[in-house]
Amino acid sequence: MDLQIDVEELRGCEDRHSLHLRRLGIDTYQEAVIYMRSDCYVCRSEGFESQSRILVQSNSRSVVATLNVVSNGLLAPGEAGLSEAAWRLLDAEEGGSVELAHPPPLVSLNKVRAKIYGSYLEAEDYEQIIRDIGAGHYSDLDIAAFLAACAGDRLGQDEIINLTKAVINNGERISWRSSPIMDKHTFGGLPGNRTSLIVVPIVTAYGLMMPKISSRAITSPAGTADTMGTLAPVNLTLAEMRRVVDREGGCIVWDREFNLSPADEYLIRVERALDLDCVGQMVASVLSKKVLAGSTHVVIDIPVDATARHRTFEAASPLGKLLALVGSSVGLEIHTIISDGSQPVGRGIGPSLEARDVLSVLRNEAGAPEDLRERALVLAGKIIEMSRTIPEGQGRQIATQILMEGRAWQKFLNICEGQGGFREPTRADFAQTIISQGDGIVTNINNRKLAQVAKLAGAPRAKSAGLELHVPAGQRVEAGQPIYTIHAETQSELDYALDYAGNTDGITAIEEV
Amino acid sequence: MDLQIDVEELRGCEDRHSLHLRRLGIDTYQEAVIYMRSDCYVCRSEGFESQSRILVQSNSRSVVATLNVVSNGLLAPGEAGLSEAAWRLLDAEEGGSVELAHPPPLVSLNKVRAKIYGSYLEAEDYEQIIRDIGAGHYSDLDIAAFLAACAGDRLGQDEIINLTKAVINNGERISWRSSPIMDKHTFGGLPGNRTSLIVVPIVTAYGLMMPKISSRAITSPAGTADTMGTLAPVNLTLAEMRRVVDREGGCIVWDREFNLSPADEYLIRVERALDLDCVGQMVASVLSKKVLAGSTHVVIDIPVDATARHRTFEAASPLGKLLALVGSSVGLEIHTIISDGSQPVGRGIGPSLEARDVLSVLRNEAGAPEDLRERALVLAGKIIEMSRTIPEGQGRQIATQILMEGRAWQKFLNICEGQGGFREPTRADFAQTIISQGDGIVTNINNRKLAQVAKLAGAPRAKSAGLELHVPAGQRVEAGQPIYTIHAETQSELDYALDYAGNTDGITAIEEV
Repeated sequence: MDLQIDVEELRGCEDRHSLHLRRLGIDTYQEAVIYMRSDCYVCRSEGFESQSRILVQSNSRSVVATLNVVSNGLLAPGEAGLSEAAWRLLDAEEGGSVELAHPPPLVSLNKVRAKIYGSYLEAEDYEQIIRDIGAGHYSDLDIAAFLAACAGDRLGQDEIINLTKAVINNGERISWRSSPIMDKHTFGGLPGNRTSLIVVPIVTAYGLMMPKISSRAITSPAGTADTMGTLAPVNLTLAEMRRVVDREGGCIVWDREFNLSPADEYLIRVERALDLDCVGQMVASVLSKKVLAGSTHVVIDIPVDATARHRTFEAASPLGKLLALVGSSVGLEIHTIISDGSQPVGRGIGPSLEARDVLSVLRNEAGAPEDLRERALVLAGKIIEMSRTIPEGQGRQIATQILMEGRAWQKFLNICEGQGGFREPTRADFAQTIISQGDGIVTNINNRKLAQVAKLAGAPRAKSAGLELHVPAGQRVEAGQPIYTIHAETQSELDYALDYAGNTDGITAIEEV
Repeated sequence: MDLQIDVEELRGCEDRHSLHLRRLGIDTYQEAVIYMRSDCYVCRSEGFESQSRILVQSNSRSVVATLNVVSNGLLAPGEAGLSEAAWRLLDAEEGGSVELAHPPPLVSLNKVRAKIYGSYLEAEDYEQIIRDIGAGHYSDLDIAAFLAACAGDRLGQDEIINLTKAVINNGERISWRSSPIMDKHTFGGLPGNRTSLIVVPIVTAYGLMMPKISSRAITSPAGTADTMGTLAPVNLTLAEMRRVVDREGGCIVWDREFNLSPADEYLIRVERALDLDCVGQMVASVLSKKVLAGSTHVVIDIPVDATARHRTFEAASPLGKLLALVGSSVGLEIHTIISDGSQPVGRGIGPSLEARDVLSVLRNEAGAPEDLRERALVLAGKIIEMSRTIPEGQGRQIATQILMEGRAWQKFLNICEGQGGFREPTRADFAQTIISQGDGIVTNINNRKLAQVAKLAGAPRAKSAGLELHVPAGQRVEAGQPIYTIHAETQSELDYALDYAGNTDGITAIEEV
């Protein structure tokens, strides 16, 4: 026993369970981590060891953090460090003091274990779990186990409804002065499917309210907020968003600023790290966000394909029913559309590349991707019909008219202006084109592998990275003809994407006929 | 863009993907973490961001680490830090250089996802998964998801066999010069059930080989190695263990030194953090360790109770069949015994307290706990019978004779001597006794909650912490009579255990009659 250290430690502390904070600046993404000396009096007296979960309190805020014990003089006696995530959650200050204690045992974790073992959970169980996740009381490991326990078809309909309600009850709800509030969502994601940027201006030009609060990519090369972010600012405050919506009827902004659902943020981040799809959790995530965003009518696009998330048409149809059922239980009117998800939409994959496709549709350019235009018109038409201001079946025609007359483009520019100003998307400095090795027909395009190429090239973090597809499925190509071009912002990312593309079979299938 | 930093970074590096190591001394338990500056050239050129998985190579060793980006001058330009786990895996040196790259996509993670979605996995899939886990290529999150996907009854028998074989193929196997090699295991754990420390000396005194390679507690207040560790050194090298076994026929050592199964270590640590039981993974873990330890004949004790892991007799019986089936598929002869798991065995819970029970049985003391003695004799008898050196049904009698004649105690002392010397277990400085509030009969003792009290008091880390049970279930007590005593090495741990005990219903149930 080294009593000298005890004394030093005690001098450094105001009391036996308090330490002074030092900002180490370590970014652990979202996990709260506390760093403490291995000879720290608090560690020893409380029995804390690495990976212990510790209740850290400061300024009337608290967080449960995972302990990393530090042995190398990174911290002075009496000091503790925090990961940046914990620092933010505690609103900590350099040199400020923190109180440390064992966290109360989390009763809701027993429910998570029960779910892992296959039990049915009650509404109150989901409320507890989501409350604790939202409060940052779960470790990332706990969340990973919860997600895996809910994946596949392990949640019953009642459970999905209860999970959805729990996420809503845990969130911050935006209320709008008028209704209806229209919304859309694409379930599962399809590369290049950036219809929102076309649908919102059409629907708002028609006169409906459509404040689109969208997310950045979770596991895909681009989300709506990523693509919109290349054309205008998307990180608006609630007040700023309201100003845009008051004037234009709509917006396309990033959901992060509103922190609608803290629990969902945690779930999604771990889901992203795991690259995992959990249908029940996704339904809860999607529908709770719509309710929290104040939406009343939602069109949901479900692309269907062998390589997309909803692998068969048979799988998508029950999903549509599930969405309608869960939606109605939380006050949402939902219309689902099953669409073709067999290949990417438009030409670009990646934020800027997809933005370019969107602009050419809005501008009614001659070479605009017909598939993206068509999908957007179907969705916009259905949303307009849901408002019940026109007879069923006329939505598509009205939407087309608004687009063709340039009113959608003008509205889009106005929305961008309101959000801080329109800009043209940038182009990447590095690019290389993959060419066909022989003559034949493009019989298949693997969305998942293509998305992987775009992600390895840097998308969505690198805005102008991604890829550009030169031939759709079904088209004849000749040897030497360009199939797709990889865009990257650095040589090493380009090399990495090329390496993957060169060593992966079946990204595109070209068969002789 | 700060070009100055680029230049500095380049000066600090031998090439664009290499950094020099600085030991930060951060203990993240087992997860490999790499710390890099936010302005690091490598981060920016490779597109790494916090939580990225990075292939770190040094001295022909490699590890996949999770990135934590550091912004606060913790590292100099050109430097990278490693968690202690990564430092060990790389056998790193201060100032040594590491090469950094994107890790190859882990194909086996697709299999984990398939399992999460409910698919059946093939033998080759488990081989890949276990190989990647053993190589440290999975993040803790990935492992957590894999465990949750395998929990409950989600692994079929074939899958459990294939998982077991995969763990064996990934491990280091100890071979012994003679056979049979006897072994025992208690499945699921029952507080105080430290029979191995009595069985090994009996069986080896009889003349059989029984090198017991045991583990520390995973989620319980004490494991065999924890309890043995209070009586003699348990961290022997393979050569040291062989010397003891050559001379005494047996030993009771800690498995950690042999690193029999690197993959299993990872799985167990995450399982511990999740406090999760996964039957298939536990069967694979237990049986693979027996094979890797060179055992040929194993008696497995399955305690059965409402609060123990195997909640009903009906659940335990299929488990026995499963163990026999999987065992025979990997060359083990297995005999399972279903035993009473309705209450703790002996009086103590926690390493030193359990050791005191063991010693009183071995020394044939008058007040020795009869239940512990009885269980040990049944197991030792069955192991002796499995050797087929005596007729069926005589094992118990021979075991009793060996114990009564003091030959087991002498053998235990010899084994301790061989392992580095016998010592008496220590006593804790802090203790408080919980007394009965009224008259009645102890109708129930909740093992799980009792174990939680012992853990909160500091067991198994604090060797002398835990609790001592004064009355068994079924016994009549009067108001004021001691029920159990909590032992702790610090006041705050004692307080924490008392707080839990005072606020938790049903740790012991006393009913008026």
